[in-house]
Amino acid sequence: MGETIMDHRAERMKSLIIQTFFECLKTEDFSQLTVGQIAEHARINRSTFYRYFSDKYTLRDEIVDDIVQDFAEHMEVDFLHMNIEDEVHTRSLQDGLIRLSSQKCRLEILWNQNLLGRNVFDEMMNAGARKVEAEILNHPTISAERKQLADWYAKLLVNNFLVTVRWWFSHSDTVSASQITTMMKRHMLYGTIPTLKESR
Amino acid sequence: MGETIMDHRAERMKSLIIQTFFECLKTEDFSQLTVGQIAEHARINRSTFYRYFSDKYTLRDEIVDDIVQDFAEHMEVDFLHMNIEDEVHTRSLQDGLIRLSSQKCRLEILWNQNLLGRNVFDEMMNAGARKVEAEILNHPTISAERKQLADWYAKLLVNNFLVTVRWWFSHSDTVSASQITTMMKRHMLYGTIPTLKESR
Repeated sequence: MGETIMDHRAERMKSLIIQTFFECLKTEDFSQLTVGQIAEHARINRSTFYRYFSDKYTLRDEIVDDIVQDFAEHMEVDFLHMNIEDEVHTRSLQDGLIRLSSQKCRLEILWNQNLLGRNVFDEMMNAGARKVEAEILNHPTISAERKQLADWYAKLLVNNFLVTVRWWFSHSDTVSASQITTMMKRHMLYGTIPTLKESR
Repeated sequence: MGETIMDHRAERMKSLIIQTFFECLKTEDFSQLTVGQIAEHARINRSTFYRYFSDKYTLRDEIVDDIVQDFAEHMEVDFLHMNIEDEVHTRSLQDGLIRLSSQKCRLEILWNQNLLGRNVFDEMMNAGARKVEAEILNHPTISAERKQLADWYAKLLVNNFLVTVRWWFSHSDTVSASQITTMMKRHMLYGTIPTLKESR
């Protein structure tokens, strides 16, 4: 019982530190940010910070690792196995987009930090692509010739998805999750250039 | 006459400094790199360095600005205007790839530097996309509905191109310029997912 209370308290304190880290990065470069600043903004002692993270780099790495792992775990691969026009696929695509949009604020902060020392966009892309690549390699009907290029296909597919998400984030006041899902589906079915040139 | 000799000398010295900058970045992070190290590697005095660049940031910015501008200038937009199956288009696509591959070593160094303070891959993408976006907006037959999404289309198209180039660079000992051109054309014509699923 005592342990559970401590666990909750520790969880809340870690959440506060992480939340404050993102608050600080809205105005400060990671390279300039200090543990003192984070502690001051969170109204905690520096010693409290150090009980949870050994320095700002450990804090950054824990946050980035979680985000990258979470993205790969939830990366949708149904499009390889079912008809893209299927309702079930549409729902799973849209659910994935809504899931990501709940992290919008944090993702944009991380993606736009040039001196974070980790390229979060690239890491998400590569982690997602490793999952898609494995799925392509194990796919029952994709040809051996295409499987030789599985890593290229995986990178293209995950990149298209992430570039679209990033574009959507900067237009999310005018473009709904359902609209962006429809737009993505059209491209998945017919390709980007044919869709652009012929108004399907 | 005297001036011309001085100009050539200045050009050669700048080239040497730039070349040395890239040499140093093969083993050193930009954030750790000093003007002293660059000067030592180039076997010049620090004062000679400062005659051409006021610090390492100015050197970086001049290099990155040149690369980004050069990429956008040569970004191929013929695919919007001609049949992609046309021989002329194939040649212009392949010429663009060969052009980029001549910068392979420098591009890979810049793309892989996490603490450069400039995201060269993203900047190339955005500069190329601005050109493609303008081309879409001025296009005679693309529909008004698609033109509203011109910035999204432009980002997707340039990203696909750059992700493919980056993938090719890491496989250029086994994949020729002509092979990668054929692969790209197939995707441009039919879309990535249809090409992956149906062996065209």
